[in-house]
Order: sequence, then C-alpha cells, then structure tokens
Amino acid sequence: MMMDASTYIPKLEDALTARERITSYIHRTPVHTSRMLNKLTGAQLFFKCENFQKAGAFKARGALNAVLGLSEQQARNGVATHSSGNHGTCLTYAAGRRGIPCTVVMPRTAPQAKKDAVKGYGGRVIECEPSTSSRESVFAEVVAETGAEFVHPYNDHRVIAGQATCSAELIEQVDGLDAVVAPIGGGGMISGTCLTLSNLAPHIKVYAAEPEQADDAYRSFKAGYIIADDAPVTIADGLKVPLKPLTWYFVSNYVTDVETVSEQEIIDAMKLMWKYMKVIIEPSSAVPLAAIMKNPRIFAGKRVGVIVTGGNVDIDKLPWARGDNP
Amino acid sequence: MMMDASTYIPKLEDALTARERITSYIHRTPVHTSRMLNKLTGAQLFFKCENFQKAGAFKARGALNAVLGLSEQQARNGVATHSSGNHGTCLTYAAGRRGIPCTVVMPRTAPQAKKDAVKGYGGRVIECEPSTSSRESVFAEVVAETGAEFVHPYNDHRVIAGQATCSAELIEQVDGLDAVVAPIGGGGMISGTCLTLSNLAPHIKVYAAEPEQADDAYRSFKAGYIIADDAPVTIADGLKVPLKPLTWYFVSNYVTDVETVSEQEIIDAMKLMWKYMKVIIEPSSAVPLAAIMKNPRIFAGKRVGVIVTGGNVDIDKLPWARGDNP
Repeated sequence: MMMDASTYIPKLEDALTARERITSYIHRTPVHTSRMLNKLTGAQLFFKCENFQKAGAFKARGALNAVLGLSEQQARNGVATHSSGNHGTCLTYAAGRRGIPCTVVMPRTAPQAKKDAVKGYGGRVIECEPSTSSRESVFAEVVAETGAEFVHPYNDHRVIAGQATCSAELIEQVDGLDAVVAPIGGGGMISGTCLTLSNLAPHIKVYAAEPEQADDAYRSFKAGYIIADDAPVTIADGLKVPLKPLTWYFVSNYVTDVETVSEQEIIDAMKLMWKYMKVIIEPSSAVPLAAIMKNPRIFAGKRVGVIVTGGNVDIDKLPWARGDNP
Repeated sequence: MMMDASTYIPKLEDALTARERITSYIHRTPVHTSRMLNKLTGAQLFFKCENFQKAGAFKARGALNAVLGLSEQQARNGVATHSSGNHGTCLTYAAGRRGIPCTVVMPRTAPQAKKDAVKGYGGRVIECEPSTSSRESVFAEVVAETGAEFVHPYNDHRVIAGQATCSAELIEQVDGLDAVVAPIGGGGMISGTCLTLSNLAPHIKVYAAEPEQADDAYRSFKAGYIIADDAPVTIADGLKVPLKPLTWYFVSNYVTDVETVSEQEIIDAMKLMWKYMKVIIEPSSAVPLAAIMKNPRIFAGKRVGVIVTGGNVDIDKLPWARGDNP
C-alpha cells in the first residue's frame, strides 16, 4: 500500500520495522550519566548520546529509515530536503549508503560546519534565506528540477518511525524512567518518542523543551492548534522550524507539557554539559537540561531520560565566545 | 613489606591488585572509533576515552590505587602532591572517596578549570611558579607543615600500577592491536601501558607522543639518559614535566619510539577530535593523534589504540580562539 508520507500516522509496527531496517547502519548510542549534573538538578539524568550517532545526530535514524525503505522507482532520482542542518547531513549520509544523490536546501545562515558536512558526505547544498517561506519556495524549484524524492525533516511518517527507534533503545538501556525530555523544533524526535513510549511504556511522561525565542510549539500546545513563526532567532539553530500536522498529532495527543528556556539558560546548560560530561553537543541539545534545571518541581527526585540530539557545532564560533551571542 | 614508592618497580601482580582495588570506583571507559579519522590517517584507530573517567582523566586510576592502598597510619594526615593539573584533581577525588584531606601544589599558570576542579572536590590548592624547581620547593614546605603522605604524579609504583589498568581494559575491549600510542609527560601512563602490555600482550608496540616544545622524553630516549627541562612552554599543559627514574625504567626498556609534534599539529588534531568524535579532550590528549597523522609510515594499515588521557580543558579559553595561542 502506498501511503502519503505527510499524512499517514505511523504506528508501533512502523517503528519496529524501522528498527530492523536501520540497526546495522546506526550506532546504538551510549547512555551517559554525570554525578555533578545529578547533584545540580536533584534528578537522576540519563543522557542518550545521539551526538555520537552516525553523521553526528539522531536524524540519521529517520533519514536512513526513509532512504532504505524507498522502492527502486522512488529512489531513482535521488532524494532532496530542506533542513536547518542535521537532517540535511543525515539524509546525505543515508543517500550515500544507498548510492543515490541528495540535494539539501539550507538557510545561508546555517553553521558552516553543517554545510561542510553535507558536502563532505557528497551532497549538494542550495542556499535559501533564513525563513520558512524562502526555504519552501527554493525547495519547490529543486524538486521540479531534479525529480528527487522529498524526505521532509519531520512531517514524514518514515522519518518519525525512524526517530522512534531512539527511545526504544533508551528504555532497554535504562530501567524505571519517570520522564523523557527532548528538544522540540519541528517535532520529529518528540513525535518518535511519543510513538514508542505511548505504546511500550505509557507511564513515562514526555516533555518537550523549547527556546523562548522560538516558542511556537509552546504557544501551539497552549492554544490547541498549530502556531508557526516565519523566522525566529535563537542560538538553538536546529529548533527554529514550526510544527506540521503529523508532529502536531503526536504533540497534542501525547506530550505532557512544553517547557521554554531563555538563550542564556541554553548557553549555561551547554557549558555544563561540555564541562562535566566532556561531550560536544550543539545548542539545541542543551535545551532539555536547561528546562530540567529550571523546573525542579517537575523533575527533582525523578529518573529522567534526556535526548542529546546532536553534536554538530561550529567549534570556531562558540556561543560563549565574545561577540557571538545572539 | 614496605616499599619505597619512588624506587620499587611495579610488577604485573601490582597492576592486577590495582585493578581489583579500584574497579568499583572508576569507569570502564568506552572505546570510540571514527570513520573520518580512520580515513584521514589510513589506520584503524581505537580511542580509549579516559576523558570520561571519574574526575575527567586517567589519573583517577593511579590516584585511587595509591589512596585506597594506604594503611590507616599512612592515611592519617591526608595526602599531598604537586601537579600541573589532572593528578591534583584526581588525587583530591580519590582522597574524598576515603574521607581524608588532600593538598595540591599547582603552577599559578595552570588552567583555572583545573584549580576549580581541585577545590570543587574539596581539596586545598597552593600555588607555585610554573617551573619544576619552584614546584618542588613549595611542595617540600607543604609536606613539612601537614605531614601528608606524598603521592607523586608518576614517579610512584602505586600510581604506575593504577595507570596500568587502562591498557588492561583496552586489550579486553579491542582485539588484534598492533600498537598503542599515549602522550608522554612524566611518563606515568606510558609506564603503566608498558607494564601491562609487556606482560600480557608483548607483541603490541608502545609509542610515546610528545610536544616538540617539551621534547625532553624524546631527547632522553635518544641520549639514553634522563634529560629534564625546567619550564617548557606548550599548549599541552599536562606534558610539561620531566621523566623520573621509575618512568625512565619503563620508557627506556619498553617503548618502541618517541614521536614529537608541533603546537599547530596538536591544535589541528584536537579540533579534528572535537569535530568528528564529538568529545571534549584537552590538548595533551590530541598529541597521539597528531603523531599518528604525522607518521603514516609507522601507523597506516595498523590497528592502533590511542589513549585519550583527559578532558579537563578550560572551554572559555580554547587554543584556537584568537589571542590564546601559545
């Protein structure tokens, strides 16, 4: 049965199929803990380190599930996407595993490290303006020109089913979690997390963490319908995109709450994770810890899984270096 | 039998005892690999990530072995040491596990992050000038005042036996290694590595990697006797100290060769590890990769273990930030 990628709501069986399909292509990433961060938050934190994932981000999961699941016919003209960064890198990585071309439309303001990564994996980068409207119009031209199969960064059941494999590993690696916190941008990781946990561990609460300066998911969640901003400004460059119908389905039905944090809180949390965990994470990945630190009434005393979404940061341009703050 | 800490040459049985003694206090650190770094070097590299070790460095191993092995009598007045950084942090950490005080003499130029770490674990920091001579004279005063048990950062059989546990884990984690490369400062890690490998896997060659600007081990190795510099200047702040008789014993008998690298080569290797492995490592830990990249005739085509010694770097003062280069 052919299913429209942007309207079919993925089920548990799709997540299980995804896991079988991608397992030999991805890392079962480790779960790290930090005595110091437990002390600072009063919680027991279990960091699922997707910064160590292939291509440096969890998005390798969804991208591989989409690319490896294509029919020969669908794969013939390659794949294309628009992405603020990691999905583009990861889709290129996945396309490379299958030996098909990949074109990525990226905002010209995206970190150079992310543009280089796409090129490094053999992909083609087309730049657009840093707004949702520009990105979507430039992308339409690319698809018209190449005939490539569109793999949306998150509003795609294949991608969500792929992201769902992350929390499936997490609950095998850590017993007795009370909650899982993941950053929310377009909502792909959160949706995959909801897909897995609502089926396999429905007692675990799912919290979404978001920058105040790109708080469209928070406002959507409170309003009860999707609110989208065109060009939010935040250091968490992976979290600027709006919810779409598929991810809204999961967010509105399965997320316990959305917590927002300031830019400074994100930077502080990022530095703490660099300092105590010795891992390179990008700003988006610090948003959950920032939310946990800000909300001890929710998280203190709990066993909390934290999705560390990626590590693709431009180390020549760190957010705490003078003059680089947003 | 009482043995002088600075003259007894540790044997395999001491390393095995150390392992039993410290196992429940340390992390069995993971071994990471990187497709990109393998591609860049032509070797298969296996990074033993001691940056994830307790207190952020392999030196937790030697420090714990020394502290936990003290008699009640020896432990009564606490412990003391001089250290350019990680040994001080790790000895303080170890002393804390046993509930005894720890005093650390540190160069005033040591990274603030390392001074803060000692204080954070409850230790006392006494500053000295950044030279071996100043460090040793200030330290003598501290011992006279406190009566503390001296745990030398490397010229101590208890410390070397503790460091030996690292490569014992590595050869259980990775089959068929041809060589192991570790940075060399005073030679504690290299000596522990030689102790383990010469007994348990004598076919694995041990290479020491050293900054050109602190190349006393290289010159010693070529001359056949210890040559010490008083105050070398290198970004690899953990590698400024000279060999001492115990470590010279292992270096002169078991090391295959010493390879030196420039400051720029260290910085380049450090950035590569940050970028592709997503791990925070300190400059000293990049010296082995720099040496491997510089010497493809030795390492290409080989399976090479790399000891990533620590991750205690001041992230506000990175070596590639403008104005901070040495």
